[in-house]
Order: sequence, then structure tokens, then C-alpha cells
Amino acid sequence: MVKKLGLLYEGKAKKVYMTDEENILWIEYKDSATAFNGEKKATIVGKGRLNNEITSLLFSKLHQADVRNHFIQKLSATEQLVKKVTIIPLEVVVRNYVAGSLSKRLGVSEGTSLEKPLIEFYYKNDDLGDPLLLEDHIAILKLATSEQIAVLKESALKVNEILTQHFQSCNVRLVDFKLEFGMDSEGTILLADEISPDTCRLWDMDTNEKFDKDVFRRDLGSLTDAYETILQRLGGSVKCTK
Amino acid sequence: MVKKLGLLYEGKAKKVYMTDEENILWIEYKDSATAFNGEKKATIVGKGRLNNEITSLLFSKLHQADVRNHFIQKLSATEQLVKKVTIIPLEVVVRNYVAGSLSKRLGVSEGTSLEKPLIEFYYKNDDLGDPLLLEDHIAILKLATSEQIAVLKESALKVNEILTQHFQSCNVRLVDFKLEFGMDSEGTILLADEISPDTCRLWDMDTNEKFDKDVFRRDLGSLTDAYETILQRLGGSVKCTK
Repeated sequence: MVKKLGLLYEGKAKKVYMTDEENILWIEYKDSATAFNGEKKATIVGKGRLNNEITSLLFSKLHQADVRNHFIQKLSATEQLVKKVTIIPLEVVVRNYVAGSLSKRLGVSEGTSLEKPLIEFYYKNDDLGDPLLLEDHIAILKLATSEQIAVLKESALKVNEILTQHFQSCNVRLVDFKLEFGMDSEGTILLADEISPDTCRLWDMDTNEKFDKDVFRRDLGSLTDAYETILQRLGGSVKCTK
Repeated sequence: MVKKLGLLYEGKAKKVYMTDEENILWIEYKDSATAFNGEKKATIVGKGRLNNEITSLLFSKLHQADVRNHFIQKLSATEQLVKKVTIIPLEVVVRNYVAGSLSKRLGVSEGTSLEKPLIEFYYKNDDLGDPLLLEDHIAILKLATSEQIAVLKESALKVNEILTQHFQSCNVRLVDFKLEFGMDSEGTILLADEISPDTCRLWDMDTNEKFDKDVFRRDLGSLTDAYETILQRLGGSVKCTK
């Protein structure tokens, strides 16, 4: 069994610990919610468990579909093991419907269906406010090569296909989502971070009720009720392996 | 001789009149300066003349180099005739050095040289704050086809080559500039609007002194002195044809 060692990094939603295995990290999901680049904050009991459960389910699903990702196993309600990667500082956003910042940017109503999935890259940089980047901007900043960008796009579209279908079978519309990728010790690009209602927009297929972080951003009700709905529709919690 | 008819449109820097020729417009350059989406405004006597003179010189230069554009002739110190086009609502920005909004977006110092010219598209939409667009955003908004985008980029790069060299011969660095294009009655894409120190960043090649609208935006001194320097370096005023 892998042993948990010292804290490596504490983010807004997760703590990352080293382990006695050089290429394995121990993740602990926190009960904190943040939005608007950290301007809105709250502690929401149960959120860590829900995101850990949901992320574990979805990364397992992606493993089954041969999407290379960092997930190793769920350890407890709020903990999981992942492969250590160096995160590429890009947020890869895939959109099937117009919502959020895209609606504001283009002046197009939320919920408008897109003819084909849209991929956007944002610079993971809190000081700069995570700006939208062109591929030429990515080249100027040397954040990724054009070959790497092609890999990110191909993987993001594959994830979109798999998850759109999976959520659809649970009567949930995958409106958009954000992915992060990293490089492992061998230079392979792996899908990393999390996939949860914190990083996806998930609407009821029939009523368009929101089951994602917009519930927190826009004060639409109980965030844990919303995330619990997603977990239940996905088939409930993953068995703990610890 | 073409006759001036009623006012068609008044913008921040120009008045546009109809003429007795259906496909010809009469432009009058105004003595007004605006910045930050109209938040900063001033009347600057002489600015209209300077921009009309400079634009006339540069569009003539581009005609000589076979860049299709809307310019017909200069009429007076502040007036010119142009072909009527339907403006494509995109600002096509070409950058040779990092400055202004690109510096803020990427967190890269002003004046950093780019390995190759960067082209960006912004949505001409004051209500939305002229946001940066990806080519996929342009497709969603149906602002231009991918073939039209290719024409805009090719033309913008050609303009950049010609003007970079021309300004260089006047000891001026063409840092970046904004172009607008339109479609004439036959569906041909023509370079339109203006090319002036309002729409270009122009720095002295040796001292990096600014001779463009940043003088107004950043309160760096006399705007007319700066624009007059550009006009003089370009060889002075064009002979009036009226």
C-alpha cells in the first residue's frame, strides 16, 4: 500500500500530498467552493466527497474507453491516488451549448445549441484572470507545441463524445466542461485534474435544471443536493478500495 | 464631380455621407479622439486633417502594391471619397511586437518582439466591449466564412509587409495595427476604414517614442505633434484633388 507523505500543494478545492512512490500523488478533496477567481468562497460540507466520488466514476469510465488519464484509484470518500504529472497551464474547455462566459463574449443566449463542439483554451493564470488564448498566443508563451495542442484537442473531443453519451443515458445534458492535462515522467500527455460538477455544466435533459457549480455561482439552491443528484444518476458511489 | 448628399452615419472619428453615386461615400474626418470604448473623449483641433492625410497616403501606397482597398481620392484636408462597402464586423489586428491588450492578456512586456506577425480577430461590438474571437466563434456568429477569413488574413499579412517596410524607411516601427474590411456591391472583399495613428501603434525606431493614440490614452503629450511627426516622416500631405 502506498504511504501518504507531506503536503505538496493546496489548491482551492483539493490538497495534494506526496507519497512514498515517486510518481504517485495522494489527493484529498476539500469541502470548499470558490467562484469568480476566488472572489466568492464558502465551505460546503459534503462537497469534497461528492466531487471525489463523481471524478472517480468518470475517470474510471474514461479509462475503460482508453482515454489516458492520471486516475489510479479511489481511497476513501474524499481521497484518491493519481499519477504525478506536470500540469500544462491551459484550461481546455469543450462546449456543446452556449453558456457562461461564451454567452457574455458572443452576446448569444445561454442554452443555444452549437452545430459542433467548440474547443477553447484558457491560460491557467489567476493573476491574469485566466484569459482566452488563441493557439498563436499559446505558441508565443511556449505553453505547448502545435503537436501537443493537436493531442489535447483530439483527447478533449473524445472525452466529450464519451461523457456526452454517458450523461445522456442518465438524462443529463453535458453543456460544457473544462479539462486539464499534464505530462507524466515519460513525457506522455495524460488527462488530469478532476471532472465533476465543479468543472462541468450539467443540466437536466428535460427541465434544464442546473446540477453544477452555477448553483453556487448564481445562488440557485443547495449545491450538495445538485451534486448528489448527479452522483445518484451516475449510479451512486464507487466502492472504496482502501 | 461627385456630389455630397445626406449624412449616412456618424462614428467616433468620422462622418460618412452618401453621394449622388450609389457606390461612393464621402468621408469627413472629425477632430475628436476617443479611447477605452468611448470612456475617454476629447476634441483635438487638427486631428481630423492629420488622419485624413495619413490615411490617404497609406491607402494610395497600398493601391500601388495591389492591395484592394476602398480609397478613391482625397478631396480636402479633412475629406476623402471611398467605395461603399458593407463592413464585416471584425477588427483584424496584426502585431509585430507585444503592446497594449496583448501585453495585459499574456503578461508579457510591451515591446517584446514576436517571432512572426500575430493576427487576432476582435468582434466590432461596443456593447460587448469588442471581445477577442476565435475563428470558431466567428463561425458560430456567422460573421465570415472560413474562406473569407483566409482572405482577410492573407490581405492583413500583405498590408503588414508593405507598411512595415514603408514605416521602417521613415525610421518608424510598426508595432501593431487594426484593419477593417468590407464587401463591395460585387461581393469583393476590400480593405476599408482608415489606417492612421488612431489605428496603428507607431514608435520611433531608435527611441521607441510613441507617435500614436497611446499618446492620448496614456496622456504622454501632444497628440497632434505626434501625428504631425508621422505625416512629415511619410513625406507630408497629399495634394488635394478637389
